[in-house]
Amino acid sequence: MSNVTEAPASREAETRARIVATAERLFREIGFQKTTVADIARELRMSPANVYRFFGSKAEIHVAVARQLMGEVEAAARRIAFGQGSAAERLRALIVSIESLNADRYIADRKLHDMVEAALDQHWPTIDEHIDRIDALFEAVIAAGMDAGEFEKGDAGLAAKLVHTACIRFCHPRLMVECADRPEPASVQMVEFCLAALRRGVSR
Amino acid sequence: MSNVTEAPASREAETRARIVATAERLFREIGFQKTTVADIARELRMSPANVYRFFGSKAEIHVAVARQLMGEVEAAARRIAFGQGSAAERLRALIVSIESLNADRYIADRKLHDMVEAALDQHWPTIDEHIDRIDALFEAVIAAGMDAGEFEKGDAGLAAKLVHTACIRFCHPRLMVECADRPEPASVQMVEFCLAALRRGVSR
Repeated sequence: MSNVTEAPASREAETRARIVATAERLFREIGFQKTTVADIARELRMSPANVYRFFGSKAEIHVAVARQLMGEVEAAARRIAFGQGSAAERLRALIVSIESLNADRYIADRKLHDMVEAALDQHWPTIDEHIDRIDALFEAVIAAGMDAGEFEKGDAGLAAKLVHTACIRFCHPRLMVECADRPEPASVQMVEFCLAALRRGVSR
Repeated sequence: MSNVTEAPASREAETRARIVATAERLFREIGFQKTTVADIARELRMSPANVYRFFGSKAEIHVAVARQLMGEVEAAARRIAFGQGSAAERLRALIVSIESLNADRYIADRKLHDMVEAALDQHWPTIDEHIDRIDALFEAVIAAGMDAGEFEKGDAGLAAKLVHTACIRFCHPRLMVECADRPEPASVQMVEFCLAALRRGVSR
């Protein structure tokens, strides 16, 4: 099949992706509360009705943009989790990367941070899904470290939640802003602390 | 000196304390935004002008109530930190008590939680002072544990900040609300994780 006779499903996915990308750009430029579906449609030279064919409401576009941003962080985290290096090295890289990617996405850009605030205040389910996905990546790395003898054997699922929770100050966009004036501990110090706990193991 | 010929300074302190206690009760009953200085004065059968002799503004009363609530938590934490038991036992008791005292103060009472939100959003300096005071108590217990050979020797000040930050989900009122639907890890599990890290020590 050539590119010219593209299947409708993939063209639909492409239009969806263009709407999300345009919405994200407008959220950064004019703010996520102020951006209307008409603004997004105008940028794409399509009718608002066409946008509504893909998204039932403005709220659905908000969630799709959040999902896209979180998906980028998850993809980078997945590459690290299943990449090269010891479990300790991958855990270090995971936490430092998540901190840096979240800072790029949600902190530097005040207008986009407003979307984070709304997502947190309104408990968007996409946040819980994101936490679960990152938990699962931590768990994969920690289980590998337990198998390899780097970490003391134990419940890798619980250990993953403990590491993720211990590092919440470096992953949670609102906390990152709140704690900006308290530089210590740095994320690298927290990772070493977590690694010490994983090496020692939690006696039950 | 008898109670009758009380010094003016202590009478002033008593009036101040009564204003703060009355404000706190009204914040719980009618909400901290809705409570006016006139409401507080009426409850105390004094004039608003007299309240303003003690507090320059309504905002000063807000901060005094927050300080009072945090001071109660600090006093309980101080008793534990300088009380009986091994360093590990005191660290366990500290974190579990802070979680429970904060839950009593800021979570159960939705109207008081609004004050927490305002304090966080407006960066009341009293929050930073509170974090520093709790950090210092963690440091005292960890330093004692290092001296006693319970924990690996190291920088007790940094270790205190690491433990406090690792436990932020159990100490920070807004996070406690946000994470209410994620019961794992529990605070007792996080304390054991931190104790494992302290016993192992962070290799530099």
